[in-house]
Formats: sequence, structure tokens, C-alpha cells
Amino acid sequence: MKICIVGLGLIGGSLAKAIKKNTHESCFGIDIDRGTIAGALAQEAIDGEMTIDDLAGCDVVIVGLHPEATIKFITENADKFKKGGIVLDTCGVKGEIVRAVEGVCIENGVNFLGCHPMAGREFSGFAYSVDNLFEKASFIMTPTDRTPMRVVQEISRLAYNIGFAKVVVSNVEEHDSVIAFTSQLAHVVSSSYVKSPSLLKQAGFSAGSFKDLTRVAKLNEDMWTELFLMNRGPLVDEIEHIIARLTEYRDAIANNDAQRLHDLLKEGRELKELSNNS
Amino acid sequence: MKICIVGLGLIGGSLAKAIKKNTHESCFGIDIDRGTIAGALAQEAIDGEMTIDDLAGCDVVIVGLHPEATIKFITENADKFKKGGIVLDTCGVKGEIVRAVEGVCIENGVNFLGCHPMAGREFSGFAYSVDNLFEKASFIMTPTDRTPMRVVQEISRLAYNIGFAKVVVSNVEEHDSVIAFTSQLAHVVSSSYVKSPSLLKQAGFSAGSFKDLTRVAKLNEDMWTELFLMNRGPLVDEIEHIIARLTEYRDAIANNDAQRLHDLLKEGRELKELSNNS
Repeated sequence: MKICIVGLGLIGGSLAKAIKKNTHESCFGIDIDRGTIAGALAQEAIDGEMTIDDLAGCDVVIVGLHPEATIKFITENADKFKKGGIVLDTCGVKGEIVRAVEGVCIENGVNFLGCHPMAGREFSGFAYSVDNLFEKASFIMTPTDRTPMRVVQEISRLAYNIGFAKVVVSNVEEHDSVIAFTSQLAHVVSSSYVKSPSLLKQAGFSAGSFKDLTRVAKLNEDMWTELFLMNRGPLVDEIEHIIARLTEYRDAIANNDAQRLHDLLKEGRELKELSNNS
Repeated sequence: MKICIVGLGLIGGSLAKAIKKNTHESCFGIDIDRGTIAGALAQEAIDGEMTIDDLAGCDVVIVGLHPEATIKFITENADKFKKGGIVLDTCGVKGEIVRAVEGVCIENGVNFLGCHPMAGREFSGFAYSVDNLFEKASFIMTPTDRTPMRVVQEISRLAYNIGFAKVVVSNVEEHDSVIAFTSQLAHVVSSSYVKSPSLLKQAGFSAGSFKDLTRVAKLNEDMWTELFLMNRGPLVDEIEHIIARLTEYRDAIANNDAQRLHDLLKEGRELKELSNNS
């Protein structure tokens, strides 16, 4: 199988390294940054550089760009992909991506599959890519009723070969609503957390809980702005939900209501334990 | 130096194990649970069991009880401690504790020092205590103007000998306002986070950020109810602050305001990076 990865950033670069390490597929790369291509060649993360015209020879094209750039790249180059081949993206939202590119791919005889490798780091770019980023990660796919079953099967097999712990087949609506909770809300909360006036007094007064709650505040604001705005409805719902819950704790504490506070905390602990077992 | 630890739970038990492992002090224990004493003796976490009457022979008494029980124990037994000896607590709030017990200790010729070993786990009790719980932790002390300097010096030396990474000298107001942010707010947010209707759909859609944001929702609601209510003012301020920040993100996202959202995220990233360097 001939694979090309477009955009060798943290995710694209890590996929390239994992493909070369764990599979026998040939893996090529396209990147607008010359240093990234040089680095990928030097580290043998890719078998060679490609140009857009080479895409016609690729069985699988993995687009590792940010959301808006992903839509632009696929729509502008839909006629350059191999007929019957597979194009997949790696964005953290699926609805807006799939709606924007699936039709134009089908019109050009190309199979598109929305994908989301559930992994990341607090750093961006090929320099931080590693061949084991996906070892404990889920690979989520969101086929539609226009996706041939063989495409799902081939990419599922590829994902397991690359080294993902689990392949999850979902749909765009479920993906986007659950991701709003598990990933996007975490970044909003973490980014909000660090804005307390107490922040710069915390040295020496912090343990694991502070570190955990604020870790993902160190994010790439260009990418996350796009991701959040492409998933406004579910994300606004989640933010409003946690604000309502926080207000319950605030009220119980302000009212010195021990029984109510105890109930709220107990409910939270039990839900956490339940989710650990789900 | 003869030390007695009252309450061999997670913190008291871990302190006992660390004292036996890292120092040459003799360390005794008092606990209402027979199984805990038996376990502590079997694991050689203590040199022996003590009764209340033995406290008069102890240079340092470490009270490892929950906040309300700590106040009750020290006030009821203030005449049992060694004259000129040191009594310290281990609670996560300091103002209410120090105000409740310092006077009665002084009246009885005993030195009280409010202390907070900044470590924990998502489990309670002696069974989960470990001798390395404090390896990377701060030991915070909150002396008042009634605390003799030699008491601060002796307990500081003991804390370093036990294996704490850092001893921080603060005061009760600073401690309680910063802890409201670094620790208490983290537990409130985490406990609120797990209450989304999306919680039980998260399996397969979660990566590190979800895990980090919800870890401390698994808390001991008895203890945290007491801690939160003893620090109402600072904690309510912090909750209201994060609600106001979350509302800013909500508005920017609901209004599809990319520039505003980008600014908010960028500010959060920069503050996180700044706090890492502080």
C-alpha cells in the first residue's frame, strides 16, 4: 500500500514514524516547510517527498492539516487523488469536515473517511512527533451511509497495524457531541482555570490536582479556535452545563449547607467511579 | 526526638512510614481502629502504640485527623501534651484550625504549628499509605506571631528529613486563599465536570485531557465538605471567577467570534507558560 501524509506536524509526523516503525507500507510526505521535509527524510519517517501530482498514485492519503486547511486542501485537490483510493483527515471535529469534503470526493471517484486519532501533546510540529504517540490511543472513524464497507475495513486494519489501542466506529453527530465533552470542554476549562488572580502565587502551594487541571491550557490557539467554532452547538451546551453545576457548588458553599455540599461531592465521586468502569 | 502520630490514615500513615524510612526519630501511633494499629505495627510504620496519657512524653505530636476531628482532639487534650512540646496538624485549611486551637495550646504551655503536607491520593486510609508520598511535595507551615522561631526551625528540619522536596513558610490567610485556587477549586471543577449527560458515552472518545480534568472527582466527600466549608470566602471567590471566565469563552463561541476566542485561548496559554516558570 502506498500512503502519503499531507502535513507532517505533530499528528502527521507521528503517524509517519509509527507507519515506518510498525508496518511494511510505503509512506511519503508533503509539507510546505522545507525543514520539516528534510527532518522527516533524515529521521526516515518518510520514504520520500511527493508533489500534488504524485497523489494520483497513492492508495491512501492522510491529510494532517488543521481543520480549515484540511477542507481547502481536499476540495481544491479532489481531482488529483487516485480514483477508488481513500482520503482521510485527522481533525478533532467531524461534522463540518465531512459535510464540506465528502461530496466533492465522491464526485471525483474518491472515497473520503472522516478520522480522528485521539492523541496529542502540549506541543506542535514535526519536532515533537514520536513513533509511540498512539500506543494507548483510540482511532475514531465516522463513516457515513455513502462510505463503502471495504474502506472502513481497510482503514481499521491500517490503524491497528499503526499501533492504535482501539478503533472506534462512530458517526459525525455522536463524535462531535461526545468530543465536545471529553476533549473540547477540558481545554476550555483548563484555559479558564489559569486566569485566576491567584495564579502567580501558586508556586509551592500546588500538587497534582493543579497540574492536572491546567495542563492543556498550553494549547495551539490557532487550531483550537477552528475546532471550537466548528462545533459550537455541542460545546456551548457543555460549557453551560458545567457553569450550572459549578453554580450549585458555589451556592452550597456560600450557604454553608454541609448536607447539600456532601451530596454534590458524593454524586461526583460515584459518577467518576462509574465512568471508570464503563 | 519522640514523635506520636494521631490518626494513621493516608497522610498520617505515610508520614509514619517516611519517618521510619528516612529519619532516626522514634515514631509512635494512636488510632481508634484496631486493624490500622495492627497493620502499622506489622509494617513497622510505628515503633509502638500509644495512649493519650503517653502524649506527655512526646516532643512532637502530629495530628493526622480530618479538620473537625483535629480541632476536637487538640482542644480536648490540650492539657495532655508535653509542656514546651510541639503539636502540629495536617489539614488542608489553616485559618479555622489555627484560630480554634492555638490559644488553648498556648494556655497549656504547648506550641502549636499549623502545617499542610501538600500531597494526596484518590484513596483514603492506612492501607493506601506509602513511604514516598511526599517525595516531590511541599510542606507548608503557617506560623503566627505567637509561634517561637525554634518551633519553625525544628519542624522545617524534620520535614526535610522526612523527605519533603520543599518547606514553604506562609501565613494562614495567604495559605487559605492560594489553596482555594490550587487545590480546592480543582476538586470542585473536577467534581462538576463528571456531571455532564455525555459522561457515560465517553469510553473510546477520551484521551489524556479528560482523564486529567476528572481525576480528583474521586474524592473523600466527608473530608472535602469540611475543608470547603472552613474556607468559604476564598473558595466562593475562585468558583465565581472561573464561572465568569467560562462565560467569556461561551459567549465568544456562541457568537462565532474567532478573534475574541483566539485572544482568550492565547491569554490562557501565555498565563500557563508564565506559571510554569514562576
